[in-house]
Amino acid sequence: MDQRIRSSFARQSMMQTLGAEIENIAPGNVVITASILPGSRQQHDVAHAALSFAIGDTAAGYAALTLMPESSEVMTAEMKINLLAPGAGDLLRATGKVIKPGRRLVIVTAEVHAVTGKEEKLVALLQGTMVPVSA
Amino acid sequence: MDQRIRSSFARQSMMQTLGAEIENIAPGNVVITASILPGSRQQHDVAHAALSFAIGDTAAGYAALTLMPESSEVMTAEMKINLLAPGAGDLLRATGKVIKPGRRLVIVTAEVHAVTGKEEKLVALLQGTMVPVSA
Amino acid sequence: MDQRIRSSFARQSMMQTLGAEIENIAPGNVVITASILPGSRQQHDVAHAALSFAIGDTAAGYAALTLMPESSEVMTAEMKINLLAPGAGDLLRATGKVIKPGRRLVIVTAEVHAVTGKEEKLVALLQGTMVPVSA
Amino acid sequence: MDQRIRSSFARQSMMQTLGAEIENIAPGNVVITASILPGSRQQHDVAHAALSFAIGDTAAGYAALTLMPESSEVMTAEMKINLLAPGAGDLLRATGKVIKPGRRLVIVTAEVHAVTGKEEKLVALLQGTMVPVSA
Repeated sequence: MDQRIRSSFARQSMMQTLGAEIENIAPGNVVITASILPGSRQQHDVAHAALSFAIGDTAAGYAALTLMPESSEVMTAEMKINLLAPGAGDLLRATGKVIKPGRRLVIVTAEVHAVTGKEEKLVALLQGTMVPVSA
Repeated sequence: MDQRIRSSFARQSMMQTLGAEIENIAPGNVVITASILPGSRQQHDVAHAALSFAIGDTAAGYAALTLMPESSEVMTAEMKINLLAPGAGDLLRATGKVIKPGRRLVIVTAEVHAVTGKEEKLVALLQGTMVPVSA
Repeated sequence: MDQRIRSSFARQSMMQTLGAEIENIAPGNVVITASILPGSRQQHDVAHAALSFAIGDTAAGYAALTLMPESSEVMTAEMKINLLAPGAGDLLRATGKVIKPGRRLVIVTAEVHAVTGKEEKLVALLQGTMVPVSA
Repeated sequence: MDQRIRSSFARQSMMQTLGAEIENIAPGNVVITASILPGSRQQHDVAHAALSFAIGDTAAGYAALTLMPESSEVMTAEMKINLLAPGAGDLLRATGKVIKPGRRLVIVTAEVHAVTGKEEKLVALLQGTMVPVSA
């Protein structure tokens, strides 16, 4: 499972572009981090909302994949993001979780924290639906 | 207005990273395009969902800004995206529209189409809330 | 199709409780109205958000059903509602539309208007996902 | 606070129509229950999605109100609901929580469980935005 997700992640060029890395993989729970690169910002020089979306959506998708049969891949059907605070800090950390697995639909959430030294601040909350597709 | 939005857009480094450009600005309606760069893809080599989100959200935000007082800037409070089809083609085009302007909340939508030659296909639909903040 | 939807609607006791009625059924487009009954209100005596949700969701669901095989029924997987204005007037009218039909997921929207005499005001916008289930 | 919320709740006729009751009020956390009345059902005789929405949205709104100044009332700006399982059982219980309070926007979630005897099953998950309005 771990290998399968790392291999899929490595093929997502957007993740490299944004400097994202997998921090942890556990059943139903995947953590992805990304530095707030100079090229990932909005007009006030903090992380663009799309960075929180990108790593939150990806963490949630792989969390879903950990609970799917080996022959499956995963696609986002829909995702909602509430932005709670500016994405300022050393890096963003997204924790994706499965709320309800299913054969046709997997309901997921993700929390995105901005990390500055030892401080963590919740900056975005995502809730959405992943669908398994045959690989 | 046109100048103000182009200047704000130019300060969003994420837009340059993703190769996004403003195609049109009209009151309550902004169009942004982005090539599907080699670095903007997911594991099946089509556009990452975060690319549709990034340009859809940004087009919707600037559409809202066109109807705000000059002293305002705009922030995304929340955004929901439904992904309808893979983002495959020459480029993605996001059209952001204001559904209801307001002093405290501006309700917006965006459609994202994948463009291949003269063909356009709807690949994502966004609905969300923008809030004015003092510049 | 018309008969099948009217028969399903008649079995939804919530629709009777809320005084909802089918106004029109066309392929991919269903209209449902509801008076703002004395028992359907929130604390300021206008329509409760749940009334807009109830008829918007139901109109969108039946719009999806018009494009499904006869052996299907429809369930809401997820629905997002933005509330734009208080639901004040003679009645609410929800127009549900299919944005993208599909074998596994049907993407829908609904607009809810408050109607006062000949005036109509957009009070809610919904965007969501319907799934076909075998009857 | 407790008195203020109970008095507001009592003025929401929709809550009486649906048989909803306040079970608990704590800072940032409100619980509302509702029997699945004969008049609250969809075509398969389980709770209509609008019942989960109604009590989830209301629990989340009052959870937000517990953290607002006394002169405020609360309105739902937007709410997203994912439906996880049919609403079958003795009653539904909605637990609304504040994720992030704020002067202009309050981010909330709600979980809705179907309760059958001592068993509880998560049937819906909501995530949304409440706005304070002057009373």
